Amino acid sequence: MAYFETVNKINFEGASSTNPFAFKYYNPEEKINGKTMEELLRFSVAYWHTFTADGSDPFGAGTAIRPWNHLSGLDLAKARVEAAFELFEKLNVPFFAFHDVDIAPEGSTLKETNENQDVIVGMIKEYMKTSKVKLLWNTANMFTNQRYVHGAATSSNADVFAYSAAKVKKALEVAKDLGAENYVFWGGREGYETLLNTDMKLEQDNLARFFHMAVDYAKEIGLNVPFLIEPKPKEPTKHQYDFDVATGLAFLQKYDLTDYFKFNIEANHATLAGHTFEHELRTARINGMLGSVDANQGDTLLGWDTDEFPTDLYTNTLAMYEILKNGGLGKGGLNFDAKVRRGSFDAEDLFHAHIAGMDAFAIGLKVANKLIEDRVLDGFVEERYSSYTSGIGLDIVEGKTNFRELEAYALQLNEIKNQSGRTERLKGLVNQYLLETLSGARV
Amino acid sequence: MAYFETVNKINFEGASSTNPFAFKYYNPEEKINGKTMEELLRFSVAYWHTFTADGSDPFGAGTAIRPWNHLSGLDLAKARVEAAFELFEKLNVPFFAFHDVDIAPEGSTLKETNENQDVIVGMIKEYMKTSKVKLLWNTANMFTNQRYVHGAATSSNADVFAYSAAKVKKALEVAKDLGAENYVFWGGREGYETLLNTDMKLEQDNLARFFHMAVDYAKEIGLNVPFLIEPKPKEPTKHQYDFDVATGLAFLQKYDLTDYFKFNIEANHATLAGHTFEHELRTARINGMLGSVDANQGDTLLGWDTDEFPTDLYTNTLAMYEILKNGGLGKGGLNFDAKVRRGSFDAEDLFHAHIAGMDAFAIGLKVANKLIEDRVLDGFVEERYSSYTSGIGLDIVEGKTNFRELEAYALQLNEIKNQSGRTERLKGLVNQYLLETLSGARV
Amino acid sequence: MAYFETVNKINFEGASSTNPFAFKYYNPEEKINGKTMEELLRFSVAYWHTFTADGSDPFGAGTAIRPWNHLSGLDLAKARVEAAFELFEKLNVPFFAFHDVDIAPEGSTLKETNENQDVIVGMIKEYMKTSKVKLLWNTANMFTNQRYVHGAATSSNADVFAYSAAKVKKALEVAKDLGAENYVFWGGREGYETLLNTDMKLEQDNLARFFHMAVDYAKEIGLNVPFLIEPKPKEPTKHQYDFDVATGLAFLQKYDLTDYFKFNIEANHATLAGHTFEHELRTARINGMLGSVDANQGDTLLGWDTDEFPTDLYTNTLAMYEILKNGGLGKGGLNFDAKVRRGSFDAEDLFHAHIAGMDAFAIGLKVANKLIEDRVLDGFVEERYSSYTSGIGLDIVEGKTNFRELEAYALQLNEIKNQSGRTERLKGLVNQYLLETLSGARV
Amino acid sequence: MAYFETVNKINFEGASSTNPFAFKYYNPEEKINGKTMEELLRFSVAYWHTFTADGSDPFGAGTAIRPWNHLSGLDLAKARVEAAFELFEKLNVPFFAFHDVDIAPEGSTLKETNENQDVIVGMIKEYMKTSKVKLLWNTANMFTNQRYVHGAATSSNADVFAYSAAKVKKALEVAKDLGAENYVFWGGREGYETLLNTDMKLEQDNLARFFHMAVDYAKEIGLNVPFLIEPKPKEPTKHQYDFDVATGLAFLQKYDLTDYFKFNIEANHATLAGHTFEHELRTARINGMLGSVDANQGDTLLGWDTDEFPTDLYTNTLAMYEILKNGGLGKGGLNFDAKVRRGSFDAEDLFHAHIAGMDAFAIGLKVANKLIEDRVLDGFVEERYSSYTSGIGLDIVEGKTNFRELEAYALQLNEIKNQSGRTERLKGLVNQYLLETLSGARV
Repeated sequence: MAYFETVNKINFEGASSTNPFAFKYYNPEEKINGKTMEELLRFSVAYWHTFTADGSDPFGAGTAIRPWNHLSGLDLAKARVEAAFELFEKLNVPFFAFHDVDIAPEGSTLKETNENQDVIVGMIKEYMKTSKVKLLWNTANMFTNQRYVHGAATSSNADVFAYSAAKVKKALEVAKDLGAENYVFWGGREGYETLLNTDMKLEQDNLARFFHMAVDYAKEIGLNVPFLIEPKPKEPTKHQYDFDVATGLAFLQKYDLTDYFKFNIEANHATLAGHTFEHELRTARINGMLGSVDANQGDTLLGWDTDEFPTDLYTNTLAMYEILKNGGLGKGGLNFDAKVRRGSFDAEDLFHAHIAGMDAFAIGLKVANKLIEDRVLDGFVEERYSSYTSGIGLDIVEGKTNFRELEAYALQLNEIKNQSGRTERLKGLVNQYLLETLSGARV
Repeated sequence: MAYFETVNKINFEGASSTNPFAFKYYNPEEKINGKTMEELLRFSVAYWHTFTADGSDPFGAGTAIRPWNHLSGLDLAKARVEAAFELFEKLNVPFFAFHDVDIAPEGSTLKETNENQDVIVGMIKEYMKTSKVKLLWNTANMFTNQRYVHGAATSSNADVFAYSAAKVKKALEVAKDLGAENYVFWGGREGYETLLNTDMKLEQDNLARFFHMAVDYAKEIGLNVPFLIEPKPKEPTKHQYDFDVATGLAFLQKYDLTDYFKFNIEANHATLAGHTFEHELRTARINGMLGSVDANQGDTLLGWDTDEFPTDLYTNTLAMYEILKNGGLGKGGLNFDAKVRRGSFDAEDLFHAHIAGMDAFAIGLKVANKLIEDRVLDGFVEERYSSYTSGIGLDIVEGKTNFRELEAYALQLNEIKNQSGRTERLKGLVNQYLLETLSGARV
Repeated sequence: MAYFETVNKINFEGASSTNPFAFKYYNPEEKINGKTMEELLRFSVAYWHTFTADGSDPFGAGTAIRPWNHLSGLDLAKARVEAAFELFEKLNVPFFAFHDVDIAPEGSTLKETNENQDVIVGMIKEYMKTSKVKLLWNTANMFTNQRYVHGAATSSNADVFAYSAAKVKKALEVAKDLGAENYVFWGGREGYETLLNTDMKLEQDNLARFFHMAVDYAKEIGLNVPFLIEPKPKEPTKHQYDFDVATGLAFLQKYDLTDYFKFNIEANHATLAGHTFEHELRTARINGMLGSVDANQGDTLLGWDTDEFPTDLYTNTLAMYEILKNGGLGKGGLNFDAKVRRGSFDAEDLFHAHIAGMDAFAIGLKVANKLIEDRVLDGFVEERYSSYTSGIGLDIVEGKTNFRELEAYALQLNEIKNQSGRTERLKGLVNQYLLETLSGARV
Repeated sequence: MAYFETVNKINFEGASSTNPFAFKYYNPEEKINGKTMEELLRFSVAYWHTFTADGSDPFGAGTAIRPWNHLSGLDLAKARVEAAFELFEKLNVPFFAFHDVDIAPEGSTLKETNENQDVIVGMIKEYMKTSKVKLLWNTANMFTNQRYVHGAATSSNADVFAYSAAKVKKALEVAKDLGAENYVFWGGREGYETLLNTDMKLEQDNLARFFHMAVDYAKEIGLNVPFLIEPKPKEPTKHQYDFDVATGLAFLQKYDLTDYFKFNIEANHATLAGHTFEHELRTARINGMLGSVDANQGDTLLGWDTDEFPTDLYTNTLAMYEILKNGGLGKGGLNFDAKVRRGSFDAEDLFHAHIAGMDAFAIGLKVANKLIEDRVLDGFVEERYSSYTSGIGLDIVEGKTNFRELEAYALQLNEIKNQSGRTERLKGLVNQYLLETLSGARV
């Protein structure tokens, strides 16, 4: 409890505090429809961005000033665990998430790597005994090491496939050991650089084989948690096989994997694929595949994954809208797969950033909840599609008609009257709800 | 034969001609691996861009100078048929394609619209008797008229669904009547403007209902042709439900429609979705869903569908590579869903543009064929993935192993050796094949 | 006063109204720092989107249901004037803007076109006598008619240059006649389709010649108003010469036009050029070139100019921030160069949309003003750059040092200490100001 | 001569060789219009990508297998010099280029850093005595080290400005010492992360002050070479001040720097800014500001700087077209600011990649030269703008007319006749020239 001394007290009472490290909107104990904010938002800290990353970018060396920068090897790994639990407690977050290589250094052999991991997993397990924080999910990093240069489960090299299998096997065991609530697959190198040298069919078949083996092994060890695919269209590869939710769904259906997998949806991955965040959430939701969320945001004028802390109140409101309509995230959570900017290099910025993101999602939750309570959108949508609740519309929905009947119906129609979609009016209403939900003013 | 008098003779002998309307590379009778270019390329003229469009854009009125500009109504429609068959013959193309509204004017009632269409379909049928040109596909335009403002099969208005059903019913009958080789669905308005007012699940369910009814009706009238979905991610809507091939595949699988549908893949729609043309073709191919092609190209620095004539030799070569590896397009073809630029407003430009596109695909065919004959890419790919043809790799592919065995294997691995992907070398080779296939120089 | 009967009363008292056509945040008489909202925001209605446009898009016919749809020619033009002044009054906006062809139909000759325009300009002048509304700016449309297919002042055809000169001459006279506060140039076709056929230097030289002639003629007729260039990077052309503010500035400097021109900056044009709106405003501001604003917004996931009503509170706040720091817009204003969505086809939607936009800018104004009052950003920035206010930093700024001295200074520096940029903290603060400025809560 | 043993002989005779390391199109001694290819193309190897980079990306560690990987510090730096000159000689390139930190390790103080650099500069100077290779340009890297986190000359910290001045001072001395033909400024961090914390005016003013000091110091030491600004719109920052050529030009004009600076134009930077490469070259050319070229290419479906080797024959042809029309590059050259893909990790790939790029530019040179010789584009353009060579058009160009006269002229015009822009025909011709220039076939 010595890493973030300058952040010695975070205020949860909000507006009255002059402490810069104060939440203004997030209150974990505040209830909304019978559940606490903590239960509804299920915030998670991403180990990699917060404890492992150093602020480097493709054109620059690391900038992050961290109290553990002078350490290395297992000492460094241990310091990070200590710092992590300090930050979890100060921020009062209920979850965290990690890749295997975030928490422990790779050794010179797979055996040594596993042993290093065992040491740190043991330490984390000890810390978890006296902390409320739980593991939202873990995963195996199969993209950083040069061996994954051509992919992991989709590598052109069978040895890499085997090695990747060993990594996921170990990670599933760690998930079991630490009581993870989910297990995530992000296929950062499961794609191609150029079709000129790529057997796309074999690579996708192999990826499916890999997933089936993972399912089998999880069953074998009694790990009964959702498996989550995290779609991303590109970066680092030119093209990744799990481009977006729809692409992932096509894959899971084709290879008979829908019973075991859902999606972990990341905002910035959505925008890189040309979608809004809420589009990806909606697509997953209506297909029963919304598992968890990587809560960040991108910059749509930039073409790479900026992984910014999610402060956009529109996006967060519409995201929470989908999540509430989904009945919540179940075992999933809002994991801050977000990094402080390279120029925000102080350790304190880690707190500023999480507070900004948590406050912004707390607002999104409240505004979305009020929109639903008042049936602002539901009411409009219900009326808009009401022609499908009787007459020819009901026949269509119930499968009781056909082209011949519909043609007969259409031939006797006079002018067809449509209703305005009222986009501008609805946007104005969203602005009103955004501004007035918190102030308690009548919207 | 009076519409394009200035283009009185197109030369098919190529390089020796000084006639500007001469093909230099396309020779319909030239054989490649036992088939003629005409059989392999199956070129089709798009009625809408070539005979109906006027060169207007969102900021400008029409510019096209056409010999039929002074006409209107059915007279205009008839003149266009005459001009069309003149152009088909002069270009010696074997196919054409149209939307219902391209060929005949809409009446004030559905009945009148159908009657107008009957007149022109009858006229086209007459022309086809003495022409070699066939109908590659037809479709119903369900996006231009204001009634489709909120979609057709996905409209929020059941009357519009019914009207759309009547339109497709008629179009299927026309397909049967004219011997169409395929039937296409382009869902230009099947998407949304904003999620705020949209019931995405109902809309997609309705779209599937619509497709099933279409399948049933085609069976009923004995129309036994491939149904083709044409993916496009956006424009005119913010988001279209058939975003790309993978998204279409997810939809077809979910709604049990894969037996009846394949894809009509358009180059510029691919790039708008963030994919290369060859990516979409490959994705369809390895899933057995490559139906037909809308041969055009976009400008990746512009964010809308420019529908340019396909002159890029790289794209055409890689497209033909996928098509040849697919064993050809079957009943599909290369339909020039392409328009002359607004500034290319002379009727003669229609010829320049088709010649440029046909020549460019003829080159693509030859270069792709030579790449395959010489096993330039196949040989490299075969060697690259050779680790899956024996040992642990073969066990993986044959489903004979599991995570435990693979871990045991991985634990005894020393350093993993990967092979270079050789992207730059392969790109250099493609350049050599592009430059030297035609000249007959040894590559 | 018979065109918008259903919108018979708009409420300006805000939150207490149940009238859907009520402003909640915009109050023209409310004072901020001694000026009314009306004076600070200077809202303007765009004649083209609101009275002339029909909701068509590249794939669809018009959808707009307007009380004047049954009219044509000068009758239509007159009805639109009546409707326009009804809407101006009901919305209580102080300005409007138009292109010549928006207000009057083109005749078969230039003379007839001018005569038509004279009729409508006369009618507008009459209406203005009894209305408070003023003309923010007018302009000549030199992009819709087919004659501008290759540009206007940059056309490859000297006749088109001459014709364009005549159009702008007339438009400058109209500006004088109606007391326009500015004159705008939007070069929608002043660019190229392909460099293959373009003499870029001649075209840009001609554009400069055209501007100089316009300056001369304005002087001649005593029209003493700012000339405004409206940058746009592309669409309709592949590349427009006034790509963005910086490009426009390079042009104006090169051709010695900076004394006469400023910029009319449009939000969606900024995003199409890869910039935020506030970036373009800032760039113009620090160069003393911020003239006026086309207040709309785009969708950064779409690659064309969507011209949406500006409801994004972040963008509007940051835009108003730049405008307030500029000391206001002077003779410029916030012109709603924005159109209702194609699906918002009711006449009432014109009101919903303007209300949503005006409310959203009213909020932006208040939040920006409070950010400035509290020196939230100014204070941070001042401290951040404080090293330039003394010592070596001051020497740099005052031009009193050189590379030799700076090297000597650098050689004796120990570790260089930077300060965190605090991006996340600042974003959190902006959220707080957005949410709490209106509610009066202490931020 | 021991680093690339497997590449022991590169064939310059082209097509007859079976050696994979053979040029097929580049022949340094072949003459075109009296100059050798070597003189016309002035190829340069980029030290950073070829000798310093390791294949890492934001999600992965280095993959490059290099014969010097086991070394560190000055030993590593020296080995790279040896390897560099071996590669220069084997590829027979006449130029190279480097950043200060590419060639020598940074020390713990500026003094030590300079001393390290002196050692390596001395070694390079020795090698240059017996080699034909010259230094195209050098530059100071002011973006990698954490001190530049907020910029160099535009840093919010005056100490960083001073340090940067010291770095450029040293780099200018090195330029003088090694006989560099140009000096380059790439402002990778001269921009902003967010406007919220940025004083854009001060930053740009300081950048201009910095450039003036650099000009002064170069004069002082008698370094009389072009200074080159290398525009890039973004990455690593959100927004860089030298966004593109036009933006750079605006800056240079404003701050009175046009006499000393030209542009170093990079293909991938152009596409990131939304421009074609040829657009940027043309813009620089017609403003007399084309200095040098960073020859690479991007992937327009990816939003970051991929720095690929330039193999696209269209781009290279159009680039060489602009360069030839510019009368060559003067002291500039074609510097391969390009990196082998991460998956092309063998040292041999460095040769494959340079050969592919050099061959592709050799083709571009030949095709562009033939297009010019045959006046394919010039002839078309000349005719297209011919209306400006007499009558009213000539009056316009010569400044002899005004709006009154032009209106009088326009009023008596009947229909305006434009000519087709013939885009498709011209693209077809470019394809023909591409395919037939090398084979010697009549185009």
